[in-house]
Amino acid sequence: MQRREILKKGLVGLGGVAAASTIAAPAIAKERVEIAMVATWGRDFPGLGTGAQRFAKRLSDMSDGRIQVTYYAAGERVKAFDSFDEVASGNAQMYHGAEYYWKGKHPGWAYFTSVPFGLTYTEMNAWIRFGGGQELWDELGADYGLKGLMCGNTGVQMGGWFRKEMNSVDDFKGLKMRMPGLGGDVLAKLGGSPVSLPGGQIYENLISGSIDATEWVGPWNDELMKFYEAAKYYYYPGMHEPGAMLACGMNKTWWDGLSKSDQMMIEAASSMENDVMMSEYNYKNGAALKRLINDQGVKLRQFNDDIYDGFAEASEEVFAEVQEHSDLANRIHQSFVTARTDIGAWAEISDQAYLQQRNRALGG
Amino acid sequence: MQRREILKKGLVGLGGVAAASTIAAPAIAKERVEIAMVATWGRDFPGLGTGAQRFAKRLSDMSDGRIQVTYYAAGERVKAFDSFDEVASGNAQMYHGAEYYWKGKHPGWAYFTSVPFGLTYTEMNAWIRFGGGQELWDELGADYGLKGLMCGNTGVQMGGWFRKEMNSVDDFKGLKMRMPGLGGDVLAKLGGSPVSLPGGQIYENLISGSIDATEWVGPWNDELMKFYEAAKYYYYPGMHEPGAMLACGMNKTWWDGLSKSDQMMIEAASSMENDVMMSEYNYKNGAALKRLINDQGVKLRQFNDDIYDGFAEASEEVFAEVQEHSDLANRIHQSFVTARTDIGAWAEISDQAYLQQRNRALGG
Repeated sequence: MQRREILKKGLVGLGGVAAASTIAAPAIAKERVEIAMVATWGRDFPGLGTGAQRFAKRLSDMSDGRIQVTYYAAGERVKAFDSFDEVASGNAQMYHGAEYYWKGKHPGWAYFTSVPFGLTYTEMNAWIRFGGGQELWDELGADYGLKGLMCGNTGVQMGGWFRKEMNSVDDFKGLKMRMPGLGGDVLAKLGGSPVSLPGGQIYENLISGSIDATEWVGPWNDELMKFYEAAKYYYYPGMHEPGAMLACGMNKTWWDGLSKSDQMMIEAASSMENDVMMSEYNYKNGAALKRLINDQGVKLRQFNDDIYDGFAEASEEVFAEVQEHSDLANRIHQSFVTARTDIGAWAEISDQAYLQQRNRALGG
Repeated sequence: MQRREILKKGLVGLGGVAAASTIAAPAIAKERVEIAMVATWGRDFPGLGTGAQRFAKRLSDMSDGRIQVTYYAAGERVKAFDSFDEVASGNAQMYHGAEYYWKGKHPGWAYFTSVPFGLTYTEMNAWIRFGGGQELWDELGADYGLKGLMCGNTGVQMGGWFRKEMNSVDDFKGLKMRMPGLGGDVLAKLGGSPVSLPGGQIYENLISGSIDATEWVGPWNDELMKFYEAAKYYYYPGMHEPGAMLACGMNKTWWDGLSKSDQMMIEAASSMENDVMMSEYNYKNGAALKRLINDQGVKLRQFNDDIYDGFAEASEEVFAEVQEHSDLANRIHQSFVTARTDIGAWAEISDQAYLQQRNRALGG
C-alpha cells in the first residue's frame, strides 16, 4: 500500500518515523480555508456571473477542496450593492464585482474598473501590474479594509443603443440615457440626462420611452436584453468603458492572515479568470454582433470624430472635478494619465497599427 | 495548542477521531511533485527568461514548496533546441520556450507561437481558450508525447532594423535578413534571403555586413542588443510575429499522472505568467522606444500599404504550402483563419476602433 492510499483511507495510529515525517512537513499539511463569496451579478449571468462562479470553482478545484468557496449571487445573501459592506465588515471574505460601483464612497474606485477615455484590457493589465496601479488600488482599499485583485474584463464596450442616428455632439442634448459611472457624468456635461438603472429595469424603461437610449456591455450580453426591439442604432466604440475590469475584493484583515502560498494561489486563480473572461467576451461578441445585424435588423454605426472630440472635451471636465476630491484621487488620476500616455503610445504603434494594417490588407 | 502547531511540530501517535479526520482528508495531505524545467532562453534574459523563472518560482511559492521546480536556463542542462526532446523523452518534466522552434518537425507548431498576419495577444487567448485552439494544440502535442499551456507573450513585435528606408516591396529583393519561422519564408517569397541566427550572433553579423537587416522582439529587448549601431531605421508594425506566445510544454505521460488539482494549479500559474509577461512588455517597450529615438538617434518608420500588401500576398503562398503538409496542419490553419476572421472582426470595431479614436482625440 502506498503512502497516498494510507492517507486516503484514513488509517490512524501508525506512529513511527515514516508517518511523522509526512505529518510534520508544513508543505504537505495545510489548513482548510473557508470563503463566503458574494457577487454583484445574478446567478449564471453570462460572462460576469458565470466568470465569477468559474473563479470560485477554480479555487476549490486547485486546492482539491482545501479552499472551500461558497458562492452567493446578487440577492442570495445580500443585495448586489451591499457586497462592499458585507466584505469590508468581515461578514463575508470576498466579493466579485465592479469597483466603480463604489465611486460614491471615493471617485478613485472608478479607475479600477474603467473610466471615459480609459485603458484597454492589455493597457490596464500593464498599469496594474507594472505601472503602479496595484499599489494605488491597495492604498485606496486599505482605507476601507479591502484588498482587490484583477478578476475579469469585458473588453471595449459598445457605445450604446439609440432610436435615431447620432450625427453630432448636439444630438446628446436632452438625451435621457442609461449610463452609470463617470461616463454618465460626461453625458451630463454634453447636456444629456444620465439615468442609473440596474440591468433588470433597462428594457422596460427603453420600451416605455422613459429613457431614449442605453448602454450595457457588448453584443453577447446586449443580445439577451433585446434592446433592439426599441432602439435599432447600435454605436461603437464606447468611450465610457473601454475595458471594464472586474475585481475580486477581499477583507484585508482576512487576506493578511492567509499564508503567502494561499495568497499566491488566490492571485493566480484570479489572474487566470481575468484572462478567461476577456477571452470569452472576445470570442462571443463577434458572433452575437453578426446575429444582431442579420437576424434582428440592427444598424451598426460608428461615432464620428465630432462626437468623439465632444466626448474627450467633456471627459477632461469630469476628470478635473475628480482630481479636486482628494490627494489620493489626484494621485490615482495622474498615475492613470501617465499610463495612458506611455503605454498608450506603445499600443498605438503595436496593436493598433498592426490590426489596422492586417485588417486592411486582408480586406477586413 | 492549535491543530496547526501540532502538525508543524510533528507530534505523532495522537490517534483518535480529531487527528484521524485531519490525516484522512485527501484535501490536506498531498504528495510532493518534483519538476525539472528546461528553457530555450539564457538565464535572466529580460522578459522571456525572467518570465520563465518567475513562473517556476510561482509554482513553488503557491504550493508552499510542495511542487519543487528546478529551473535550467538554455545550456545549463541541455542546449536550447534540445528542450523538446528532453521533455518528450521524459528526462525533464517541463520546458519553457516558443513552439515555432519545432516547426521543422511539423509546421503546425508555428501556429502556437505566432504566424505572419496572425493573431494579437487577446485574439490568440480567445482562440486557444474558446475557439478550438487548445484542442488542436493538444492533438498535435499528443503525437509527440507533449502537453502545452500558454505561458507568456511578447505582444506585437517590431518589423525590424534596416540600414536604409524601405519604400516598396522591391526593396526586399536580395535583402539578407535574420528572420526565423514562417516570417522568413514570407521574406523568401519576396526575393529576400532569410537567415536563421541565434540571438547571440545577430549583432556581429549585422556589424560585419554579413546580414543587411534583422528583426528581434521589440524596443525593450532590442535596445540591449545595440542593433542601432549598424542599422538606424526601425520599422513597425511587424507582420511576422504579431503576438508571439510562449509555452509551458510538459511531458504528457507525467501531466496525465498528476492529480486534477495539481493540473489546475499549474494551469493557473501558467495562465498568470501569460499575462504578467505581456504586461511587462507593454509597460517597458514604450519607454525603451523613447530612449532609442532620443538617445540613440533611431529613426522610427512605418511600413507603407504597398509593402504590407506584398507581405500579405506572400503570406498566402506560404500558408498554401503549410496546408499541403498534412490533414492536421490543414485543420490547424483553417481553425486559425476562422479565428482571425471572426475574433478579428470584433477586434476591428472594439480595440482597434477605440484606440484609433482615443489616440486621435487626445492628440496622440
